[in-house]
Order: sequence, then structure tokens, then C-alpha cells
Amino acid sequence: MKMSARNRLPGTITEVVKGEAAAKVTLQVGDNHMVALITRESADELGLEVGKQATALVKATDVMILTDEGVA
Amino acid sequence: MKMSARNRLPGTITEVVKGEAAAKVTLQVGDNHMVALITRESADELGLEVGKQATALVKATDVMILTDEGVA
Amino acid sequence: MKMSARNRLPGTITEVVKGEAAAKVTLQVGDNHMVALITRESADELGLEVGKQATALVKATDVMILTDEGVA
Amino acid sequence: MKMSARNRLPGTITEVVKGEAAAKVTLQVGDNHMVALITRESADELGLEVGKQATALVKATDVMILTDEGVA
Amino acid sequence: MKMSARNRLPGTITEVVKGEAAAKVTLQVGDNHMVALITRESADELGLEVGKQATALVKATDVMILTDEGVA
Amino acid sequence: MKMSARNRLPGTITEVVKGEAAAKVTLQVGDNHMVALITRESADELGLEVGKQATALVKATDVMILTDEGVA
Repeated sequence: MKMSARNRLPGTITEVVKGEAAAKVTLQVGDNHMVALITRESADELGLEVGKQATALVKATDVMILTDEGVA
Repeated sequence: MKMSARNRLPGTITEVVKGEAAAKVTLQVGDNHMVALITRESADELGLEVGKQATALVKATDVMILTDEGVA
Repeated sequence: MKMSARNRLPGTITEVVKGEAAAKVTLQVGDNHMVALITRESADELGLEVGKQATALVKATDVMILTDEGVA
Repeated sequence: MKMSARNRLPGTITEVVKGEAAAKVTLQVGDNHMVALITRESADELGLEVGKQATALVKATDVMILTDEGVA
Repeated sequence: MKMSARNRLPGTITEVVKGEAAAKVTLQVGDNHMVALITRESADELGLEVGKQATALVKATDVMILTDEGVA
Repeated sequence: MKMSARNRLPGTITEVVKGEAAAKVTLQVGDNHMVALITRESADELGLEVGKQATALVKATDVMILTDEGVA
């Protein structure tokens, strides 16, 4: 299977918080944290839990760019 | 300034491709590549170019999760 | 009224799950299921409930493409 | 700091509804209301509450266009 | 017709830039500018052009929040 | 591999329009058309072309709901 989504960041799940409809999943990806807000249904079906390996996937249209224009 | 967007991944720009309306910007973020599709206007205004430091920013609602269920 | 959003998929609501802030709505669209995560406010105001006709609407920038490269 | 996200709409928070994983935040922006569905974590960390000044931020790829073709 | 998308900001088109696949559309909405990146197909079909009335439409899950923690 | 993205709509590619940075891909999915705006890079790498089988993939947070309140 090939996917158009450009961004795949493999990591380890460090937190899962489940609400009724939504769930928040946090991953450690290298030196960064990544947070995903998905349906609770997905979190249940994928059996997401702390310590499990998982990959954060992001479509290129959803990535913004910040630059830090240092002030002298 | 504080921002609700949960995901910030600092890196270095490795490619900028500009169309009329859109632009594609690629960053090296640790061991991963990240690709952003933004307006060309943004790419021009921020002066994005190869070698410049920049941060990829992603809202948590735009992050999906993949798991790899290995089959023995 | 005309809308730039390219994708409209008419169907029937098969499930509504309401949390405090978010709600999950599932539609049967032809042979496919479609799941939407929206605000609970929207689900209440539109009176979404099982059996009601509704249309899933998706902006083209939010559609990804998968291909299945079969290996012989 | 400069940001590629094109749309910034300053306003005043008029409602915050927190669920377990998600939170809904409503702002008054000029004559319009804007509603954001973010993680509860963000709402807590930014200390979002009614009456506080805040800015709604939207990436250009997430903006759709409606036109009203009046029928004579 | 009722729509779950919470955010509708009526304005006037001030710029349209068309590429092959994408188009950028700018609106004046009260005191703010809003920029949309849509398909060129949409821009053509809706006949978007400078001076025309149009409404920017944004799903709540695509709105982020910024706060400005002023330092005295 | 399992994926949190809830919506997968299999179909056949009916059009591919490539710009410099972006590409528009149209699929026939049952009785509906689906249009995706992705990076040109993705369209090239996946070898997307008319007549090829492909699946449209959409995250639940990106699906809106319309209802048609008929007026008697």
C-alpha cells in the first residue's frame, strides 16, 4: 500500500485520554511530543495504549511553517 | 504568545517548490522529513529557502495514528 | 448557494455518540461508512439522529489517496 | 516569530466547554462568532476562560468559500 | 440546508490567484483578511472574482487559539 | 497496518491535474465523485493516472454534516 500523506513520524505512545466521542493520544517522536485528537472509536479499535509503538501521520496540507526572526 | 496547536517540530528547510497559488516546503526534522503545502504568499512573506531554520506546526486534530500489527 | 467544498456524499445516519464538547456521527453512504467528528453543538442544532438523511461534506484538501500496489 | 497560517481573527472568549479529551471554545470576532474544537489540554494550558482576549488562527487550506447565487 | 460547520464569515473578494491545480482567494471580512486555498476547479465553477460577495466557511476542528501573554 | 482514519472510499481515478506544487485528483466512488488536492510529489510517487484503482482516505475530524430541512 502506498499513501499520498507525506508525513510519517514513528514513536511510542506516552498517554491516552478517552472521552465519549474523542480521544487524545500523545506520542514521543525522537525529541518531540506529538498529540493527536482522534475518535474514541479509533483509539479502541487500534488498541492504543501507553508503551505501544505507533506512527503519527499528517497530510502535507495540514502542516504550517513557523520561522523565528531573531531580533538583534 | 501561546498557541493551542500542540505539535511543533523544529528543523531545517531542504526544498522549496513554488507554484502560482501553492508552495511545497520540505524540512528535515531529526531523522524524519516533513512536507508542508502552504500558500505561495506565505512562502514568499516568510522568505523560506533551503538551509533556513523553521518549525513545522500541526494541530492535534490533523494527526492520525498508524499501528503496525505484525503477522507472525 | 454554491460551495467550494468538492465532496458531498449523501447517506443515512446510523449512529450518533455525544460527548461534552465533541460528537461522533456515522453515516451509511452507498456501500461505505463515513464517520464525522464534529462539535456537540452542531449535532444538537442540526438534530442529528439515527435514520435521518444527511450529507457528508469534505474539502478537497482533506482527501488523501491510497493505492494498493499488489506484489505478484 | 512569523507564521505561514494566513488567517488571524482577534476576539474575546464567550464560552468554554470542556470534555475529557476535547474542548469547544467560542469567540466573538467583530460581528461574527467563531468556534474552535481543540484538545482539552490546550484549553487548560492556555488558561482559556470567558472574557479573555484570544485570536482564532486558521490555515488557508482549511477555508472554504460559499457564494449566494440569488435566483431572480 | 443546515450545516455543521460553525464558522461563516461574510465578506468581499479582494484577490484571486489561479494555478493549475490550486487557487488562492482573499476576502475582506470586517477588519480582517481571510485567505483560502481551494481547488482551481472550485474557483472556476463558483466564478470567483474581485468585488464579488462571498462567505468564508471553516470547520471548528480547523480553528486554533492564540493568546498573547503580555509581559509588563 | 491499522489506521485511525475512519473513512476509506475505494474508486477509480477519472482525472489528474498537476501544478508545480499541488495536484488535483478526481475519483469515481460509487455514484459520487471525490476530489483530492494533494502535493504534486505524491501524485508522481504514487503514479496516479486515469483508470487506476485508488482509495480516498479522510480523517473523521475533516467530515462535515449537511441536512436538508425541506420547507413544505
